[in-house]
Amino acid sequence: MKELPLKRAFMLLEPGPVILLTTTSGGKNNIMTISWHMVMDFTPQFALLTWPWNFSYEALVKNRECVIAVPTVDLAKKVVGIGTCSGRDTDKFDKFGLTPLRAKSVQAPLIKECLANIECRVTDHVKKHGIFVLDGVHAWIDPGRKERRTIHAIGDGTFVVDGRTIDHRKLMLSKLPPGV
Amino acid sequence: MKELPLKRAFMLLEPGPVILLTTTSGGKNNIMTISWHMVMDFTPQFALLTWPWNFSYEALVKNRECVIAVPTVDLAKKVVGIGTCSGRDTDKFDKFGLTPLRAKSVQAPLIKECLANIECRVTDHVKKHGIFVLDGVHAWIDPGRKERRTIHAIGDGTFVVDGRTIDHRKLMLSKLPPGV
Repeated sequence: MKELPLKRAFMLLEPGPVILLTTTSGGKNNIMTISWHMVMDFTPQFALLTWPWNFSYEALVKNRECVIAVPTVDLAKKVVGIGTCSGRDTDKFDKFGLTPLRAKSVQAPLIKECLANIECRVTDHVKKHGIFVLDGVHAWIDPGRKERRTIHAIGDGTFVVDGRTIDHRKLMLSKLPPGV
Repeated sequence: MKELPLKRAFMLLEPGPVILLTTTSGGKNNIMTISWHMVMDFTPQFALLTWPWNFSYEALVKNRECVIAVPTVDLAKKVVGIGTCSGRDTDKFDKFGLTPLRAKSVQAPLIKECLANIECRVTDHVKKHGIFVLDGVHAWIDPGRKERRTIHAIGDGTFVVDGRTIDHRKLMLSKLPPGV
């Protein structure tokens, strides 16, 4: 993984892909699958939703840190599998053949097999709505990875894969943040 | 537009497309372009981020309602154009040749040219973070529309268009909400 300038990290989540969230607690790593997230700022800042019935919730509340990993279409079956079992009784890194890598600033691990990883700190928890507010502190990308298409959950068990890209940079120049 | 069962409306936003948000205030309709939104519940409930420097903010705070319209790739240039001018000095329906349709439960208009529209009420405003919490109250879809591919902002002026769909319904059966 190569370090990605932090000001470009929001571009990994802005398109709304399914992400994997890693946490660690009591020496055990865990992973959850999430589609309910959004960018909040270019700094970068993110929001995501999770509740106490998800095993990762406790680690987020306790350790106030996590890693957002961005999987691609070749990992789709693993992403779905991760979302349908619980860290309470499953070592998901082991079950799904994924490799935890040491992060730079947080205890939660990066996922080697993912396209990108963002180390995050929890800066607020809006309990009423289940919203965790995260600051990205380091970001990493695998520059040599061939498959770079992410997947987007439709919510019924189907997923749409990234297609072609269209370029409207010229039209948007006045609105783009610096450094992207 | 044909009414869409409300329990399926979250499926329009779960994949993370760029959306258009309509509001109305003082007899004037407005539209803004947003990528910073997420699903919060299947009911459906959504979150989106906007701040006082966006002209739509005042209408959201004052009238506590809006319409989320889902544009497709054929509307990409208009979507970008809408995001780079302000309702303060522009009638965006007029400028971009879009047609406001009367909604069923809110004063804000549907957009005829979009694939789908969700009428929403603001149920909370987390001011500290700029987050509006919305309940969807009616949803509409254009069943005859040929172009159904949405677009996802990358954040640098480029957009990724929906590609193929993959089906993992069987793997996810235990996790799907009723009625999708």
